[in-house]
Amino acid sequence: MDRVIVAGGGLVGCAVSMFLVRRGIPVVIYERGADPRLTSVTTRPSINVTLCARGLRSLERLALTDRLPGLLMPAYGRMIHNTSGAITYQPYSESGDAIYCVARRQLCIALLNAAEERGVTLVFDRRVTTVDCDDGAIVLEDRDGHRTHDRASAILAADGCYSTIRRQLQRRDRFDYAQSYCTHGYKELIIPEALARAASLTEDALHLWPRHDFMALAFANVDRSFTCSIHLPFDGPDGFEALADDGAVRSFFGRWFADLVPLVPSFAPRFLAQPPNSMVTIRCWPWSARRVLLLGDAAHAMFPSYGQGANAGFQDCELLDELIGRHGTDWRRVFTAFESMRKPDTDAMADLCGEHFVELRERVDHDTFHRRCRVERELHRCFPDRFVPLYSMISFSSIGYAEARRRDAIQQSLVDALMRDPHIEARLREPAFLDSLSTRLGSLAREVARVS
Amino acid sequence: MDRVIVAGGGLVGCAVSMFLVRRGIPVVIYERGADPRLTSVTTRPSINVTLCARGLRSLERLALTDRLPGLLMPAYGRMIHNTSGAITYQPYSESGDAIYCVARRQLCIALLNAAEERGVTLVFDRRVTTVDCDDGAIVLEDRDGHRTHDRASAILAADGCYSTIRRQLQRRDRFDYAQSYCTHGYKELIIPEALARAASLTEDALHLWPRHDFMALAFANVDRSFTCSIHLPFDGPDGFEALADDGAVRSFFGRWFADLVPLVPSFAPRFLAQPPNSMVTIRCWPWSARRVLLLGDAAHAMFPSYGQGANAGFQDCELLDELIGRHGTDWRRVFTAFESMRKPDTDAMADLCGEHFVELRERVDHDTFHRRCRVERELHRCFPDRFVPLYSMISFSSIGYAEARRRDAIQQSLVDALMRDPHIEARLREPAFLDSLSTRLGSLAREVARVS
Repeated sequence: MDRVIVAGGGLVGCAVSMFLVRRGIPVVIYERGADPRLTSVTTRPSINVTLCARGLRSLERLALTDRLPGLLMPAYGRMIHNTSGAITYQPYSESGDAIYCVARRQLCIALLNAAEERGVTLVFDRRVTTVDCDDGAIVLEDRDGHRTHDRASAILAADGCYSTIRRQLQRRDRFDYAQSYCTHGYKELIIPEALARAASLTEDALHLWPRHDFMALAFANVDRSFTCSIHLPFDGPDGFEALADDGAVRSFFGRWFADLVPLVPSFAPRFLAQPPNSMVTIRCWPWSARRVLLLGDAAHAMFPSYGQGANAGFQDCELLDELIGRHGTDWRRVFTAFESMRKPDTDAMADLCGEHFVELRERVDHDTFHRRCRVERELHRCFPDRFVPLYSMISFSSIGYAEARRRDAIQQSLVDALMRDPHIEARLREPAFLDSLSTRLGSLAREVARVS
Repeated sequence: MDRVIVAGGGLVGCAVSMFLVRRGIPVVIYERGADPRLTSVTTRPSINVTLCARGLRSLERLALTDRLPGLLMPAYGRMIHNTSGAITYQPYSESGDAIYCVARRQLCIALLNAAEERGVTLVFDRRVTTVDCDDGAIVLEDRDGHRTHDRASAILAADGCYSTIRRQLQRRDRFDYAQSYCTHGYKELIIPEALARAASLTEDALHLWPRHDFMALAFANVDRSFTCSIHLPFDGPDGFEALADDGAVRSFFGRWFADLVPLVPSFAPRFLAQPPNSMVTIRCWPWSARRVLLLGDAAHAMFPSYGQGANAGFQDCELLDELIGRHGTDWRRVFTAFESMRKPDTDAMADLCGEHFVELRERVDHDTFHRRCRVERELHRCFPDRFVPLYSMISFSSIGYAEARRRDAIQQSLVDALMRDPHIEARLREPAFLDSLSTRLGSLAREVARVS
C-alpha cells in the first residue's frame, strides 16, 4: 500500500499533502518546529510571502481559495518614492492585475487546518536525522532526543531552503549542488497602522524606495500596518556593517529615506536590534534519489525579490499531482519526469530573481524605464495574446518560467527597436502603425514557437 | 604562543606543516585514516598524481627534492594511439620539459617521514567531528568513538575534496559553495611491466587514446608497470551504465581500444569489478572563517585532467608561507590575504581543467590540432619570453593560473590569424616574417600587461 512521508509542514508540505490525500494516498507530515496554531512566535524567515496568479491557481485546484480572502492584500502597482519625496504610480497592468501580500504564518495555519481536515496526519517537533533513499526509511528525533523510525513508499522533502534531506543527498556521489548568497541582505520593520494612515500610504500598492545600490519596500498587511524591508549591501560604506550605531543609521536614513524614517517608531534602535537576513539561491541536481524527492525551496531556493518562492513551490505541487495522474504511484517515473520537466523553469526563475532585484533598485525610478513600461503595457493592451510584458507573464499567468524568459528575450528586441523612435507613444495610437506591428508580432510569435 | 592544527595528513597537510615548523610554529596533524606507513591498502582516490614545475618548486622551497628522485617518472610528451593502431608522438616542448607521474601513496609516505623528522606531531585515526571557527577549538573522534578536544591559534583544513571542516563552514551564513560533477567518470587498470615491455610502451611519455567522447590514458609507474585510466561518460550507449556485462565490455573495447585490451590481463572482469570514480569541481567562498582556513582540494577541488590538483595544493602552501613571512601570525590578515590572492588562480585552473578534459578527448588526434601545436612550439622557440603555449605556462612555469589564462586568450588571437596561412610553418623560418612577428608579439605583451 502506498503511503507518503512529507518532511516539512510549511506551505509546500501542506499543499503537496492535500494533492496526495485527494488521490487517496495516506500522508504523514513531520515538521521540526512546533505547531504554529498553538504558539505565538516568528521572526525569520520573512514574515510575508507574495501570491500571484500561478500560486493561486494551484491553491484553486485544491479548492482552497475560499479560505484565503481574509488573508490577501492586493497590490495593483508600484508606488515609487524618490529621494525628494515625490511619488509616482506605476500600475502592474492596464487590466487591473494584482499580486497579493500574505502573512506567511496565517497562510501556513490555514493550510495546516485544511490539511488536517482532509485527513493528513500532522506530527510536530520531529526533526529528520537520517534518510535512507533506497528504502524510504527515515529517522526522526523529538525535542527530548527520543528517536523514532518511519518508512514509506515515497518521501517528499519540503523542508525548505536549509533542507536536512538535501544535505544528506549532497553526500551522495554525483549530486550537483550550489548555494550562492546575494551581496545584499535585508531587515524588516513594521509601520504601524496609525502612522501609515496619517501618511496616506496607499494600501493597494507596493511602496518602493529605489536608491540604486540599495532600496526599501513596503507592503500592507491585513491589519493595515505595513511591513517594510530595507535592502542594503552587507559591505561597503552604505552596508549593514558600516551602519553599526545610532548616529550612522540616523544620518544614512535621514539622507536617503527621509519620508520613511518617521513612519517607523524608534527607527534606529529597531534597525540596530536585528541582524540582517541574507538571501540565497540554491540549485541542485538531481532532485530525486530513488524514493526521495526535493520540492519547493529545498530543490530551488531563490531570492524573494520577484515574490515567486511560494508560487513556484505551489506550482511544483500541482505539476507533481499531474504526473501522478499520468503515471500513478510509479514513484521513480514520477520523480524523474518531475525533475526534468521542472528544473529548467526554476533555474530560469532564479536567474530572473537576481536580475529583478537589480531592476527594482537601479532602474525603476528612471524616466526611460517608466516610458518603456508604458510602451510595453500599451503593446499588451493592443495585442493581448501576442505581447505580454515579462512581469505579467511571471505574475499574472501560469506560463512556464523558462518559456516566459525566452519570450521576453525576443520581445525585448522589438521594444529596443521601438524605443529608438522618440514619438513611439503617439505612434502606438496610429492604426496603420499598429497594423505593421501586428505583422511583426506575428513573426515574433513564430520565432517564439520555433525556439520553444 | 602560536600553535597550529592541521586537519588531514595528505600531501597538502604535510607540506603546509613543514612550512610552519620551519618558521618555529608547533604543528599537529590530525589524520582520519590509519598511518599509511604501517598499512597496505589504497584503492580510491586515484593511485597516481602528477607533479610539474610549480609543485616541484614548492617542494624545493621545503628542501624536499632530494627525497623525490626514486619516485618520479618523467613524461616528455604524449604518445597518441589512434583507432587504427597508428601512433603519433607530440613532445610537450622543444626544450625537453617533462611532467612527472608519482604514486600518491609513496609521495605521501615520503612527506610524512620528512614532516615527522622535522618535528611535526602526527596523530592518525582521528576524525574531526566539530570545529569552532571563532575559538580555534576542534573535537576529534578515534575509531572506538572516544572523543578528544584540542585548540590552537589556527586550524588549517587540508582534509581534501570531501572536507568535513568545509561542510561545517557551509552551514554558516553567506558561505557560497558549489560542487559540480563531470558527466564523465573513470576506472583505473594496471598494465603489468612484462606486457608493457612486450608491447614496447615507451615509459617516458603519457599514452593517450583519444576517442572524442571518451578516452584512455596511461602513465608509467616506477616499477615499470603502467596505470591506465579509462574515461567514459556515465550515461548513454558508450557509458559506464551501458557497459554492464562481459559481452558489452568486450565488444566496446575491442572496437575502440583494440591495442589496449591485450595489455591488461582479464580486462573485462577487472573493468567490471570496480565502480567508476567520479570527478568533481568544488568552489567555495570565503575560504576562511576566523581561525580556520581551507587549503588544497578542501578549498578548490578540480578535475584531474590537467594533473594540477597536487601542484595547486603545494602552491597554496608556498603562498601561505610567503604571507606568514609578510604578516607574521596575524592569522586573520594572513587568511584574508591568502584567499583573495589565491581564489582567482584556482578558479581559472578549475575552468582550464574542464576545457582540457574536452581537448584531450576531442581535439588531440586531429591534424589541425597537431599543426597548431607545432606552430605554438615554434613561436615559443623563436620568442621564448614573449610567447609561451598555455600547457607550458601551466606545467613548466609558476606563472599564476589566472594570468596564464589571460595571456593565452591573447596569444590565441595571434595563432588564429597565423593558422589562416596554409604555409605558416615554412614562413616561421623566414627572418623577415619573424621580425614582423616580433613587433606583433611586443604589442601583445603590452596588452597582457594592461589587462593584468
